[in-house]
Amino acid sequence: MDLGDLRDEATQKLVTPKLTRSVWFTDRNENIALSIRHKGDRIFREKSPFQTVEIFDTFEYGKMLTVDNMVMCSEKDENAYHEMIIHVPMLLNPSIKNALVIGGGDGGSVREILKHHDVEKVTMVEIDEVVVKASQEFLPTLSSALNHPKLELHIDDGIKFVRESPSEVYDLIVVDSSDPVGPSEGLFSVDFYKDVYRCLKPGGVMTAQSESPRFNQRAFVDMNACLKGIFGQEHVHCYLAFIPTYPTGMWSFTYASKGGAHPSSDHDRSRAAEFAVNNNLQYYNADIHQAAFCLPTFIKNMLNG
Amino acid sequence: MDLGDLRDEATQKLVTPKLTRSVWFTDRNENIALSIRHKGDRIFREKSPFQTVEIFDTFEYGKMLTVDNMVMCSEKDENAYHEMIIHVPMLLNPSIKNALVIGGGDGGSVREILKHHDVEKVTMVEIDEVVVKASQEFLPTLSSALNHPKLELHIDDGIKFVRESPSEVYDLIVVDSSDPVGPSEGLFSVDFYKDVYRCLKPGGVMTAQSESPRFNQRAFVDMNACLKGIFGQEHVHCYLAFIPTYPTGMWSFTYASKGGAHPSSDHDRSRAAEFAVNNNLQYYNADIHQAAFCLPTFIKNMLNG
Repeated sequence: MDLGDLRDEATQKLVTPKLTRSVWFTDRNENIALSIRHKGDRIFREKSPFQTVEIFDTFEYGKMLTVDNMVMCSEKDENAYHEMIIHVPMLLNPSIKNALVIGGGDGGSVREILKHHDVEKVTMVEIDEVVVKASQEFLPTLSSALNHPKLELHIDDGIKFVRESPSEVYDLIVVDSSDPVGPSEGLFSVDFYKDVYRCLKPGGVMTAQSESPRFNQRAFVDMNACLKGIFGQEHVHCYLAFIPTYPTGMWSFTYASKGGAHPSSDHDRSRAAEFAVNNNLQYYNADIHQAAFCLPTFIKNMLNG
Repeated sequence: MDLGDLRDEATQKLVTPKLTRSVWFTDRNENIALSIRHKGDRIFREKSPFQTVEIFDTFEYGKMLTVDNMVMCSEKDENAYHEMIIHVPMLLNPSIKNALVIGGGDGGSVREILKHHDVEKVTMVEIDEVVVKASQEFLPTLSSALNHPKLELHIDDGIKFVRESPSEVYDLIVVDSSDPVGPSEGLFSVDFYKDVYRCLKPGGVMTAQSESPRFNQRAFVDMNACLKGIFGQEHVHCYLAFIPTYPTGMWSFTYASKGGAHPSSDHDRSRAAEFAVNNNLQYYNADIHQAAFCLPTFIKNMLNG
């Protein structure tokens, strides 16, 4: 146990370990902070060449993976994020065979993609091997598909990977990044998304996590504008999900299509409903799919302002 | 300035006031905490016979009203709460003339009700005069309708008020309570909601804030069961809104009808859209109305479990 373990995350005071000690992990920007109580010692902690990767055992959400003090996912709350980033594009476009995931080292996105049995190949490009290792060792429900025969896992820079990729090869590209600092910063750039567009087959689609409209308003707005510039105004659609383990609890995704399905008019509700039931999904259902694309007026105004 | 002002809310450390000091308000349960940075001194602080009422000036959300360390509302984020608790029932039931608000001392609910010009009378029953006073003095955008000629304001116990009320007098009852501790505890009881049901006219409806499914799961589930027992299974409908200033950001409301409109099949979309535009609503729109009633699967399971 190092000295860090003796410091209360929320209060930054040194604490004496005892059965009733209250130890908190905090994810914050300059004005808003979310704290989640955990059981004390970090289960995993390693400083990789890119970031500090940690796993905490929390009281409310089970085991939780963090990177440089930002929540990546937790056992109890990860379904919302992974089901929404994957099944929204995949249930709109049932002919997806070849998928690329940028980031997503915990394995949750790959696990959800492989629930679609028509998928033939998934390529995942994660820059930080330590995230993969931590998840494989301590988050088995997330990483369960990381050894799947259809998966080709590259430990590599996703930006470089798409830059060097041939054109028009993927039916689906998922950008499952962390926040736009550190190694993920370049995943919020115009050049990166130009490559993403180029690598998509005609009829292909992409989804990306696109931050919180309140917590990271600048990144949220900029990314939407960036994607509209590349895919075209009418082919970019923002959608929302409740993710209580992320600051503000309101998280956005962006779906962009290179001639693929429209998110509402092309939605096959009965197929979506059947898939959700058969796969025991915890967040996604046919109603939620439609509802997620309905934005509060102030968010529409942010994106059109 | 009292000693409390020298203590960092998030860290509980004594701090030396200086221009760059970082002072935080924290709303927490035993496992989750939400902290919001403010500018230092409390703008208002009074211990009433019921609770400690405070107003902070926050960086992210403007002025923020708190009661016993729980966020009640903030200038920037209050629209979501007040528009959703009021316009959902009112745009479903355009013949509402006589409305009762229990709680809601900040005035936001009354302000939204009075945007519907066919309303003839609003009765508001707030137990704590200090909340009303604080809002009138420091939150003018919230309290702007508290002097409206159609409003009858009672400083009284809402539980006693409905118990002593004649039967079948209100078209709409809004339960705009704080969390189920302190003076609001009785607003989460079967006896209270039996009186609410009795006081509604045939064809009347009620809405209540019904807590966070993650932060206060017990209260959320119990209240739904309680209302189904009184109004009947098929007349009780839960809906959700993103409220980043409340812990977990995912907040629920419950709409219950005594023969009033169904929340989706009776929704007049074009009327709702026109109202939202004419009144410059910031959160509610016709799509959001429908979307709010679409629940993630794990929440449906909580309510049916």
